[in-house]
Amino acid sequence: LKDCKYAHFRREFLQLHPIDQAEFYGTLEESFRQKLYKAIHSNEMAAIFQALDFEEQKHLAVIELDQQYAANMLNHLYADDAADFLSQLEAHEAEAILRTMKAEEANHVIDLMSYPPKTAGSIMTKEFVSITSNQTVQQVIEQLRLEAPDAETIYYLYVVNDVKQLVGVLSLRDLLTASPNEVIEHLMSSRVISIESTSDQEEVAKLIKKYDLLAAPIISPNRTLLGIVTVDDVMDVIEDETTEDLGEFSASRGATDVNLSAFQAAKLRSPWIIMLMFFGLITAGIIDQYEETLEQIVLLAAFIPLLMDSAGNTGTQSLAVVVRGLALGTIEKKGLLRTLRREFSTGLMIGLLCALVLVLIIPLIYGNVILAIIVGVSVFCSLSIATVIGAIVPLIINKLKLDPAIASGPFITTINDILGLLIYFSIATSLLQYL
Amino acid sequence: LKDCKYAHFRREFLQLHPIDQAEFYGTLEESFRQKLYKAIHSNEMAAIFQALDFEEQKHLAVIELDQQYAANMLNHLYADDAADFLSQLEAHEAEAILRTMKAEEANHVIDLMSYPPKTAGSIMTKEFVSITSNQTVQQVIEQLRLEAPDAETIYYLYVVNDVKQLVGVLSLRDLLTASPNEVIEHLMSSRVISIESTSDQEEVAKLIKKYDLLAAPIISPNRTLLGIVTVDDVMDVIEDETTEDLGEFSASRGATDVNLSAFQAAKLRSPWIIMLMFFGLITAGIIDQYEETLEQIVLLAAFIPLLMDSAGNTGTQSLAVVVRGLALGTIEKKGLLRTLRREFSTGLMIGLLCALVLVLIIPLIYGNVILAIIVGVSVFCSLSIATVIGAIVPLIINKLKLDPAIASGPFITTINDILGLLIYFSIATSLLQYL
Repeated sequence: LKDCKYAHFRREFLQLHPIDQAEFYGTLEESFRQKLYKAIHSNEMAAIFQALDFEEQKHLAVIELDQQYAANMLNHLYADDAADFLSQLEAHEAEAILRTMKAEEANHVIDLMSYPPKTAGSIMTKEFVSITSNQTVQQVIEQLRLEAPDAETIYYLYVVNDVKQLVGVLSLRDLLTASPNEVIEHLMSSRVISIESTSDQEEVAKLIKKYDLLAAPIISPNRTLLGIVTVDDVMDVIEDETTEDLGEFSASRGATDVNLSAFQAAKLRSPWIIMLMFFGLITAGIIDQYEETLEQIVLLAAFIPLLMDSAGNTGTQSLAVVVRGLALGTIEKKGLLRTLRREFSTGLMIGLLCALVLVLIIPLIYGNVILAIIVGVSVFCSLSIATVIGAIVPLIINKLKLDPAIASGPFITTINDILGLLIYFSIATSLLQYL
Repeated sequence: LKDCKYAHFRREFLQLHPIDQAEFYGTLEESFRQKLYKAIHSNEMAAIFQALDFEEQKHLAVIELDQQYAANMLNHLYADDAADFLSQLEAHEAEAILRTMKAEEANHVIDLMSYPPKTAGSIMTKEFVSITSNQTVQQVIEQLRLEAPDAETIYYLYVVNDVKQLVGVLSLRDLLTASPNEVIEHLMSSRVISIESTSDQEEVAKLIKKYDLLAAPIISPNRTLLGIVTVDDVMDVIEDETTEDLGEFSASRGATDVNLSAFQAAKLRSPWIIMLMFFGLITAGIIDQYEETLEQIVLLAAFIPLLMDSAGNTGTQSLAVVVRGLALGTIEKKGLLRTLRREFSTGLMIGLLCALVLVLIIPLIYGNVILAIIVGVSVFCSLSIATVIGAIVPLIINKLKLDPAIASGPFITTINDILGLLIYFSIATSLLQYL
């Protein structure tokens, strides 16, 4: 295909969706890639660039392309994607590229890079369409013809006053169905759903999801329109947050990427395992304290796993309920105390049920009623407590705005293990005389 | 506000976003709600209805509204939302409403209800804009003016031939920037990204995410255009799938909703806990087999929790990596075998590191080198195996297209517990003479 039939290749290649172009690009060797750069303009390359991983982007923009071509390409990128890429580069590499870029585009990008990560400002883009309330439908349509190729979305038109404050919004749908001479002021909705640039990116995601929007306007404290966040960026935010939640659940935060090498994965994951293993040493110390009790009735050891797993599983269920409730905002609606009370009641019921099953089954297998009572009562107590621990720890962490990684699933399981074993051996020791 | 000043209330109320109208509606008592129904037309009520929970919807449509008003309201709903609601009702209730609805709308809804749950067909809607390739830009704009109020999105225009097969797509953006006399055939892209109605709803979500689309067309096997799925529906799919994944991780599938009563939650969650408790009884049986070994050296029992937790945590990490990799499609790219090999290597490294730490620490605390070797070697073996179990079980389940709930986190933890204990006690028994 590409033994220098550039024109033919160009025509075929540009018919593909940019995402598929990027996939094709990823399969090429360097010599072919260099030919591709000659066949493709920098604005067409921008669409491919946007679909690549950061590592591929870096290789492309910093190593393979000459600086002028790279800067032209970044000029054509949406400012949010350019800012995203440049903020991950070394400072001097980013500066070199920014200096070669068009001043206007570079300023947009530098502005976006100034917002702290994970805020609404950091994920917004500058390429929106703003209109004024005294324009007519016809005038706006004319304006759209000019601006449409560069805007990230033209489906929402944001109405600003003469000091650039956001005063209204109009969908393209409403614009098209209106008569050409109508004035925007009479068509626009003045109750605009907007969000401040310093808000958490998750707030933007919640807003867009709640109102089924295609984009949300980002404003400054004095209501100046700064940028917009589109629904595709929000989908990426949701994906990242989900990965983060799952990482927390499994003590593998930041290490769930299958593309890491085994060594990198081990390096990221082993600190968690080792930290949790030290908690295991505490548990070992507790059991060691009760060595005398254990010596008298070794069978007690057999139920350690059952007790630990049951408490661990019940606590993890509560954790899942609370983590999901916080993510979806259903807990705010219901109230913290009511959530806790619900979890505790659930724990009491599950605990009671499990205890009853054990008190019936253990005597059948091991012929020991006292043992059954010890295990049953311990399971009842530790399951009731486990739900409260599983629910309260993430709630406290959320209230204190701490890093929720501390409340990871295995951590809660470990707390519940320790409490469960203390309960178990205390009960066993006090009932020892009857065994 | 609403002591019968209907006209004034109406004006104020309709300025609110439907989502906020629904929130306000939720705070009203029945007598006020009845007044609201009088003030608001059935098409305006449809927007509120769409934002309610199923229980609220059912109460509204089946109990509080008279059947004609309810049917009118459902006529104005997008067909996918109506189908969603009606398919959750009892068959006779749904039929009663469908019979009162407009025949055309009712047929759309009945058609949508015929697709199996969780397929692309079940989440699509019929309200799309279809055009033909011989229309001009001006003609399409005229058509949009008429159809825009009823279509779920007008931002993508789907081009069909005379037997309704999908042959192209055109964005409203491209339409607006084209000259009015241009023919659609020259503007449209004929490489349309589409998906069959029988595909899994997650496939639609992946496609829309991958290509940053606002909607995707759903086709029959012979490429007839059946409907579209919009990005807001896809966000709901992603949310549901995330809830499901988290439920599987924590053995609380289908029970992570904070709004369930404590009794309902206990009813849904206790079967998992009890099932896992029975596995605990198996573990107890295994330990019981080694009672003699334990009697001779009770301290062995102290390290049961450490061993179990470490294997459980490591396995859960692998599970998280694989579950996330399957959800994001990164595992397909990397290959199953390479993923498994990566996990196993990671397990060997983490296992080795943990074993080294234990072999150094245990003699310091308990003054027992043999014990340290037993625990260290067991941890090394069980952690290496745990990563493989954690990775292979969800992969097999995914390949066999079974219900992934079987691979829930606690289930994998339990398998790893059993294997870990067998390794531990086998090693301990064979080294008993040296203790």
